[in-house]
Amino acid sequence: MPFVRECILTTLDTGGNVHAAPMGIHEYEAHLVILPFKPSITLDNLESQGTATLNYTDDVRVYAGCLTGHNDWPTRTTKIIQGERLANCISHTEVEVIQKTDDQVRPKYFCKVVHEAIHAPFHGYNRAQFAVIELAILVSRLHMLDIEKINHEIDYLKPKIEKTAGPREREAWNWLMLKVSGFHKSQEGES
Amino acid sequence: MPFVRECILTTLDTGGNVHAAPMGIHEYEAHLVILPFKPSITLDNLESQGTATLNYTDDVRVYAGCLTGHNDWPTRTTKIIQGERLANCISHTEVEVIQKTDDQVRPKYFCKVVHEAIHAPFHGYNRAQFAVIELAILVSRLHMLDIEKINHEIDYLKPKIEKTAGPREREAWNWLMLKVSGFHKSQEGES
Repeated sequence: MPFVRECILTTLDTGGNVHAAPMGIHEYEAHLVILPFKPSITLDNLESQGTATLNYTDDVRVYAGCLTGHNDWPTRTTKIIQGERLANCISHTEVEVIQKTDDQVRPKYFCKVVHEAIHAPFHGYNRAQFAVIELAILVSRLHMLDIEKINHEIDYLKPKIEKTAGPREREAWNWLMLKVSGFHKSQEGES
Repeated sequence: MPFVRECILTTLDTGGNVHAAPMGIHEYEAHLVILPFKPSITLDNLESQGTATLNYTDDVRVYAGCLTGHNDWPTRTTKIIQGERLANCISHTEVEVIQKTDDQVRPKYFCKVVHEAIHAPFHGYNRAQFAVIELAILVSRLHMLDIEKINHEIDYLKPKIEKTAGPREREAWNWLMLKVSGFHKSQEGES
């Protein structure tokens, strides 16, 4: 498996509307490979525009927000491609699609980097940020996982929030936990 | 609890030798707080020099290396304080101790930032890097944890290496796993 960058991918639709989605981008030799699911807005936008922006932010509320309806993050115009980047990203990469491999589930868009910029210093790892990223991944798969596995992982991740989080990480964690408990309740209603 | 930055702290001894140690630095209002254990080289160096450098690197081999004897990382002279920073850090922060609170186990050194510099773009989160950081923390506490807990955590972390690691993360993981298996063998020998 290649190295995977977890980032917020921003793309534009034909009307110029920004779409932001958490995504694992593969580093494959000289290229960055985007693997959107079928169907998805990201896929539609890649097809129509042929460009995307990888946003690297340490504000994990953006990751949690994409899954919980908190989407009001300011953006700035990108430098080379026609696009938008997150205003609060530490750095960002602008890419152009140069090749595509089709697939029933996740086609691969091979991209070349056309611009990269740094906006703020990286201040090191934070274990609570990783806990939020992992919980966000769980939340994106709630319908595929059983409750025991979810609760087991939350038990593992929660102490990292308690020991190392700041206000942003706690807010992101709480948004995601509300989603988990709402999902559990809806399942109980069905059973 | 305050927000914790996981970084590589570099300090100098009175002879100018660099000491590098993975450390969780607390953000406390306007200050960064270093909490070295008693006794430790970091503590001695903070006492004698009153300065330190927080290195933020995405090369997790440095974290694993500090615990497994791979310590040959090139450094560069710092800008304001008399110190050394990792050559391969993404950014770094130079600090001066301004106040100290003593403690039997972990005294607190309150520091002010005197310089900060960016050297390379942050390329987003990577789940394998998180797994290495978590395994490094386990390895630093091997003598305090039971084997079951260690193996349980490794089972949780290992898929993140398999799915998202690049060569640096795999190398760091393997160094740490050798340390774990070596420790297990030494325990068997004692029992």
